[in-house]
Amino acid sequence: MIQFPKPQVAQFFRTYVITDFAVSKDEKKLLFASNLDGKMNLWAMNLPDVYPYLFAHRDESCGEITIDANNRFVLANYDKDGDENYQIYAVPYDGGLPQPFITGDPSEKYYICHLSEDGERVYYMTSEENPSFLNARVRNLQDGSDTLLNTGDAAPTYLEAVSPDEQAFVYSKTFANTYATGIVKKGDKEYSLVPDPSIVHVAQSPVFTDNDTVYFVTDYQADQSYVAKFDITTASFAKVLAIPDEEVKVLKWDKERNAFYIVTEKGVTDKLYYYELASEAINEVDIPVDIIEQLRVAASGNIYILGRSATIPLNIFQAKDGGSWKQLTNNRVLGVEPEDMVNPEVVSYTSFDGMEIEALLFRAKPECDNGHTIFWPHGGPQAAERKMFRSMFQCFLNRGYTIFAPNFRGSTGYGSEFVKLVEQDWGEGPRLDCVAGIEWLFEQNITDSNRLFLVGGSYGGYMALLLHGRHAEYFRAVVDIFGPSDLFTFVQSVPPHWKPLMERWLGDPERDKERFIKDSPVTYLDGMTKPMLVIQGAKDPRVVKKESDQIVAKLKEKGRDVSYFVMEDEGHGFSKKENEIKVYNLMLEFMEKHQLKKAHV
Amino acid sequence: MIQFPKPQVAQFFRTYVITDFAVSKDEKKLLFASNLDGKMNLWAMNLPDVYPYLFAHRDESCGEITIDANNRFVLANYDKDGDENYQIYAVPYDGGLPQPFITGDPSEKYYICHLSEDGERVYYMTSEENPSFLNARVRNLQDGSDTLLNTGDAAPTYLEAVSPDEQAFVYSKTFANTYATGIVKKGDKEYSLVPDPSIVHVAQSPVFTDNDTVYFVTDYQADQSYVAKFDITTASFAKVLAIPDEEVKVLKWDKERNAFYIVTEKGVTDKLYYYELASEAINEVDIPVDIIEQLRVAASGNIYILGRSATIPLNIFQAKDGGSWKQLTNNRVLGVEPEDMVNPEVVSYTSFDGMEIEALLFRAKPECDNGHTIFWPHGGPQAAERKMFRSMFQCFLNRGYTIFAPNFRGSTGYGSEFVKLVEQDWGEGPRLDCVAGIEWLFEQNITDSNRLFLVGGSYGGYMALLLHGRHAEYFRAVVDIFGPSDLFTFVQSVPPHWKPLMERWLGDPERDKERFIKDSPVTYLDGMTKPMLVIQGAKDPRVVKKESDQIVAKLKEKGRDVSYFVMEDEGHGFSKKENEIKVYNLMLEFMEKHQLKKAHV
Repeated sequence: MIQFPKPQVAQFFRTYVITDFAVSKDEKKLLFASNLDGKMNLWAMNLPDVYPYLFAHRDESCGEITIDANNRFVLANYDKDGDENYQIYAVPYDGGLPQPFITGDPSEKYYICHLSEDGERVYYMTSEENPSFLNARVRNLQDGSDTLLNTGDAAPTYLEAVSPDEQAFVYSKTFANTYATGIVKKGDKEYSLVPDPSIVHVAQSPVFTDNDTVYFVTDYQADQSYVAKFDITTASFAKVLAIPDEEVKVLKWDKERNAFYIVTEKGVTDKLYYYELASEAINEVDIPVDIIEQLRVAASGNIYILGRSATIPLNIFQAKDGGSWKQLTNNRVLGVEPEDMVNPEVVSYTSFDGMEIEALLFRAKPECDNGHTIFWPHGGPQAAERKMFRSMFQCFLNRGYTIFAPNFRGSTGYGSEFVKLVEQDWGEGPRLDCVAGIEWLFEQNITDSNRLFLVGGSYGGYMALLLHGRHAEYFRAVVDIFGPSDLFTFVQSVPPHWKPLMERWLGDPERDKERFIKDSPVTYLDGMTKPMLVIQGAKDPRVVKKESDQIVAKLKEKGRDVSYFVMEDEGHGFSKKENEIKVYNLMLEFMEKHQLKKAHV
Repeated sequence: MIQFPKPQVAQFFRTYVITDFAVSKDEKKLLFASNLDGKMNLWAMNLPDVYPYLFAHRDESCGEITIDANNRFVLANYDKDGDENYQIYAVPYDGGLPQPFITGDPSEKYYICHLSEDGERVYYMTSEENPSFLNARVRNLQDGSDTLLNTGDAAPTYLEAVSPDEQAFVYSKTFANTYATGIVKKGDKEYSLVPDPSIVHVAQSPVFTDNDTVYFVTDYQADQSYVAKFDITTASFAKVLAIPDEEVKVLKWDKERNAFYIVTEKGVTDKLYYYELASEAINEVDIPVDIIEQLRVAASGNIYILGRSATIPLNIFQAKDGGSWKQLTNNRVLGVEPEDMVNPEVVSYTSFDGMEIEALLFRAKPECDNGHTIFWPHGGPQAAERKMFRSMFQCFLNRGYTIFAPNFRGSTGYGSEFVKLVEQDWGEGPRLDCVAGIEWLFEQNITDSNRLFLVGGSYGGYMALLLHGRHAEYFRAVVDIFGPSDLFTFVQSVPPHWKPLMERWLGDPERDKERFIKDSPVTYLDGMTKPMLVIQGAKDPRVVKKESDQIVAKLKEKGRDVSYFVMEDEGHGFSKKENEIKVYNLMLEFMEKHQLKKAHV
């Protein structure tokens, strides 16, 4: 028989992402945004046929797919080379090339918020004339008029929901990831969704069930978010439903059946519930994946989810009539079955101050194991490492690396208090949680300082730099992917609409000068003694290239072993398949070069 | 409402090709070779699910997909950048990266002929040690042995069929497109499939229905090919079935039901029949396309075809239990429905010597019409322009060009005598048929010499050059895509295994020197006075780059208006989507620049 070698690196990167999807009202067309053909484009399937075809070609990141209910056109937004300056394009219902629809100077942003039922009015946000706080506008397709609806102030303000009669609007004002108020505006009146908006809370996922009732998700005066209701006529707030030990994330309205689909987060996995308003009955709905990225409820009652698990890449699933799930897409690793990949163990360990930290431990299969472990502090930081497929992880695992990913304080999914612990403390508590995680790995004999790599991106890249600077003795070598290196320059360089959030999130560079110094990786250049690889997208709008340029330059001045790879046509992530493969190959080469045995030969 | 512009050029090239497909014995896996993601790769669907996934990644042209009946592996051959030096690779049954299996020096060729039922013996052809005539070999997977089965001689010799007991073999010897004999070898014995192999004929598509019976297609002593039978035990030949006014092209054996599927060619379309051997009943089978590129019959009786029509790109269709067709793939023009494209009229005109010539006339829709016509002499020349989707045609039509494509003498589909008329007469009869076609266009007031472009590729490029040199007065401008410019150099530069065919096809450069001079485009450099665009693939093994280099150099010396575009990574065709779009955009720009009105502004 013909003998085949083990799966090779590039195979793991021949999956694709699906970043958004939408289903037409008649459920005859499903559109999704994917780099199925190497670059991001919109694809379609004519349901029930699932064979996908190219729907709109532009080779740029796209999302917010919005299908006219009368099947006349499709809206979506596109950025340019990952610059995140999304602008709104229109595509004929039968597909074609996206045409500029609501666009402006390349530096401006335009987001689709809502398309009226009759498809004649497009509600959207724009940075035009209000770069920090954003304005809401409405474009009328019948007369071509474009009207200012709301001027954002105090914080980035976003139109979240429009009432059926288009007379009431819910806006969010986001002061931080953990502090976002909801405001209802109707005529001249303005209401807060919660009784006292000055109490730090989040109000999100608002849904109008009629012209005067808004259901939403909030953690107002609670550690875990729950479903609440606001009645405009009586200006009254009410708690509706909490699910013990789970955080409610998203509400989706099943209008025909007067019910909600509720997505909750429980640590590293998601759950789905069906809640009937009349009977107040709540039932868990089986889901085919661990993580729900998106959920759409059709008028027919069919539901569609975009989701993934640790060994299942992003795919779209359909459940008809409450029946079993059908996987519509077939996004998979080239030539590797899910059972040949690694499902993580969920472990926990006690940190420096007694706090329990949950982590994912992906153990390399014995037949692959190269004896080395990768410590991965996730990005965000107000996010979490969850049971979600990552080509990088499964590829590194196949190459024999064990991976450890802790949900240090500041991670989402563990309550409102926990997630706030990173605010104005980027470099102390979360770092010590990482250190405790590393020591736990050593205690468990999973690895030791001769066999541990440190790899992180974005905030995880920042943490990698900081851990390197302060705890180099734990690591063989370090990879930083677009991580901020200096909090003073980082706080100045974020996009304008982020700036109002920076105070709560990170702090004030004047007032908190000493902490900024203490928590900036550049403070610890002398400690960064291990080989390092730094990766940066030239067009990154979140962590600008200068953040990487400066630390690389300073380390090179000191004669340190640092490699720097800049991708000219990428932003904060890899939108182009060949770039992605190139970067991860570089990372693998870098780690293989610095493995224990090889370094000693 | 949002207004959208008419379909744009690139949309027509966002289809893909499907060059080959295969279905596993259990019909659970369908594999196809396609540039769905921009470059040629193998894709799979897990039937009945039709969502395709990447099965093998190599980014090179591939074909001859052969699936082990025991679902252990898949074989396919791959070339390099279009060099047509195919070599045999193996892929795990679950997909992955193709591994070299039967390969050699990059200049050698290896073709898969047959995989034994038990999947243990691979019969293949190779140019190794016999570059002109090829050898047949068998690789035994159990013991790894590789045995010479047949040494080709006299003409390129190809193993076409293997008997169930693997004791009898049918070889073809191809002296010309119109002269290919079939030989049965069994033990020491050797038989010709037809009584007198010295009579010019073609014997093709042989099928063993048992160890001693071969059915095949031939035009032996007939103008149109038919089904014949050869009995090895009695060494007897018999005519089995002819279909009036149609040429039988392909036989596919439905073993379980003791019947044949028969593909026939009738001018510009194909037909399909089902012929039961026991009852001798023959019935036409409805097909969903005009042209069948490939047909596969499963043990279940299900049939699969790869086919296309003028407005339907290559797609794979399935018919279950003799029922209606289901389109499995959904390859389509981006944002353009078939009804918005142009179906050609089939017209005929009388040529210089009274011969009737059939042609396809694609009339630009009135709302698109730019008043110009493209004259397209097809390649081959022993091929035909048929009702098959071409991105180029539909794109040019959408831009307003009418297209006229004559099946001049030498074209296939009009009988054995007709196709031979181009042999040793490349430049006289076929050229005068083209001239008669042009004059017919003028008489019909479809176009005139101020509004006629001339575009051709391969032999059609040769014809474009020749028509330009001898009849420049008919044309505004000329596009030559890898056309031979000098028959003396062309005859020397073809691949070794083509050389034995050249005598009958083109002639002998010594003996036919005067005709070679008369029929070589370079002879008419002085006449080539119109603007010209020449396109060539640097790795083209059929019409080598020198053919284009030399004529471009000579014309430039004379100060003529000639543009030259060489694609470094392409052969005789465009394997890479972006190259294809670039080339056709160039052609459109060239023609638009030379349109009547624009030229007069």
